[in-house]
Amino acid sequence: VARIALDASGGDFAPAQPVAGALEAVQNLPANCEIVLVGSRSEIEAELAKHGRQPDRISIVDAPEKIGMDEKPLAAVRSKRKSSIVTGLQLHRQGEVDAFISAGNTGAVMAASTLLLGLHDGVERPAIGTVLPSMKEEILLLDAGANVDCSPRELMGFAQLGAVYVRDVFERPDPVVGLLNIGEESEKGNAAAKEAYALLKTTTHFTFAGNIEGSDILVGRCDVVVCDGFVGNIVLKLIESVARTFDGMFRTALDASIVDSEAMKEVFHFLDYSSYGGAPLLGVQGVTIICHGRSSSRAIASALRVALRAVNVHLSDHIHDEFVEDGAVA
Amino acid sequence: VARIALDASGGDFAPAQPVAGALEAVQNLPANCEIVLVGSRSEIEAELAKHGRQPDRISIVDAPEKIGMDEKPLAAVRSKRKSSIVTGLQLHRQGEVDAFISAGNTGAVMAASTLLLGLHDGVERPAIGTVLPSMKEEILLLDAGANVDCSPRELMGFAQLGAVYVRDVFERPDPVVGLLNIGEESEKGNAAAKEAYALLKTTTHFTFAGNIEGSDILVGRCDVVVCDGFVGNIVLKLIESVARTFDGMFRTALDASIVDSEAMKEVFHFLDYSSYGGAPLLGVQGVTIICHGRSSSRAIASALRVALRAVNVHLSDHIHDEFVEDGAVA
Repeated sequence: VARIALDASGGDFAPAQPVAGALEAVQNLPANCEIVLVGSRSEIEAELAKHGRQPDRISIVDAPEKIGMDEKPLAAVRSKRKSSIVTGLQLHRQGEVDAFISAGNTGAVMAASTLLLGLHDGVERPAIGTVLPSMKEEILLLDAGANVDCSPRELMGFAQLGAVYVRDVFERPDPVVGLLNIGEESEKGNAAAKEAYALLKTTTHFTFAGNIEGSDILVGRCDVVVCDGFVGNIVLKLIESVARTFDGMFRTALDASIVDSEAMKEVFHFLDYSSYGGAPLLGVQGVTIICHGRSSSRAIASALRVALRAVNVHLSDHIHDEFVEDGAVA
Repeated sequence: VARIALDASGGDFAPAQPVAGALEAVQNLPANCEIVLVGSRSEIEAELAKHGRQPDRISIVDAPEKIGMDEKPLAAVRSKRKSSIVTGLQLHRQGEVDAFISAGNTGAVMAASTLLLGLHDGVERPAIGTVLPSMKEEILLLDAGANVDCSPRELMGFAQLGAVYVRDVFERPDPVVGLLNIGEESEKGNAAAKEAYALLKTTTHFTFAGNIEGSDILVGRCDVVVCDGFVGNIVLKLIESVARTFDGMFRTALDASIVDSEAMKEVFHFLDYSSYGGAPLLGVQGVTIICHGRSSSRAIASALRVALRAVNVHLSDHIHDEFVEDGAVA
């Protein structure tokens, strides 16, 4: 049995969207999968009552405290032991559940995951991997905002984490990793990128495609795009904004019948983050999936599927193996 | 009389597109504007012959050597004194022309501009400003790739350069400057961004909007977006690739009649860099405009208009004034 804890108090639309997402997901998940809603029991029960049912495979763990989206992460995690985030990750630490999903305060989810689950040996810093669309298949970009000012060794670590994730969750046996840079040549880039290039080109764990540029991301040249969290976060938010920008322009320029056509919807679906199922926090001992604060029930359901897959394929064990295999990365 | 030197040997489509761009521009430029084509005289004459005419206000200065797109900039500038880039910038230095435009080797144009024109007092490093589309008006992002690993003071300098440019060339008297970052709060970001925020918030030279995020760029929240050249170059190339990506998807999803409609063309025109007229190299004593290597004649003509405007409004003098006014920036 795989048990997945879902933060029912996290995100801008909690508890409505997380609860709806759980109900949506549970119908299509295999019979051996259970969802544990973590949050205010009374609020969750009221929300389930609106849907008029509580399916068998959904249970509740009461966590009355809430961590706000703008609270200082570390202070909140330390003081609010009965918050949905701390409670859910304690369940994971104790082996009561196999994964934790939250659309709540990203910093708090990261801090609590690191404190309670711990990092795998050899992992210097955990990274947020974000799934992006490309002209070929979906790709993973990391780090998407957990770490700024990264060292070359940390960038190398992100590449390893991303390669294992893509192999396990995207089911691509030979992941191709690219280093996001401002030119293809090895001597291009800032100090960290240049040294990271030198580390990456010696690896035998995955195929290193060398430096890739901003124009290569959406083309899908690589399965994994590695960058520091400052660059990654800016890229991620820029790409998210493109769909909104285009939608506005098309509504001004074109007839509504075209804008709302199925064909057009398909194009915009391409850029819709809700179909990509949350961002894994990679490097922790366990499975933590971070969802966008504005996640819809559909995005939550998608994250539940991704978490289940990560549990079933033993992602965390494989990350452990990747980092112990050769001791140090350099 | 304003005289603008145009590199006729620079770029992937030289001399055809630069020469065609000059012919296109000269018809619409004011009578007191002259264009000097710098490059192989025989090649330029052959190209002009194809068009069957050499208008009055276009002259040629012979520069038989060529700097390739992939040559090491500094070495090329030092060894090829008769290249179009070195020759054109020497004309500018000597006051024979008032501006220089090139679609050639960007690094070589930067190096030769810095060596031959020199930087204004108080400018630590020159920056490439790139004009980007936004939902409101066009905006300037800098640095777009001239400098990686920038200090807080350099970022502050970019903000000053950008504000003067927007005031002069975009004709916006009160430019709003934003610092590209991963969150709005002052404590967000990498070390350089945090310190740059502290410097920027004390300025009285322009309106500082604080930190902006990747999602704010295309919205047009600011007239000037400040970042280091590593981030800026990745953002620029990503945005350029969006139009190509969408065009491909629309051609697959929609009828050709819709994709090729005027309304649709208008939307794509929004993201077409060729209409934005080249990237100014800011901080040098003079006017240097760098064009994309793949510039069409239309992009070249657009750059000629921008260069003329920069000359006529005395952009370089205003940058001088901005940096001497209060001595140091900090």
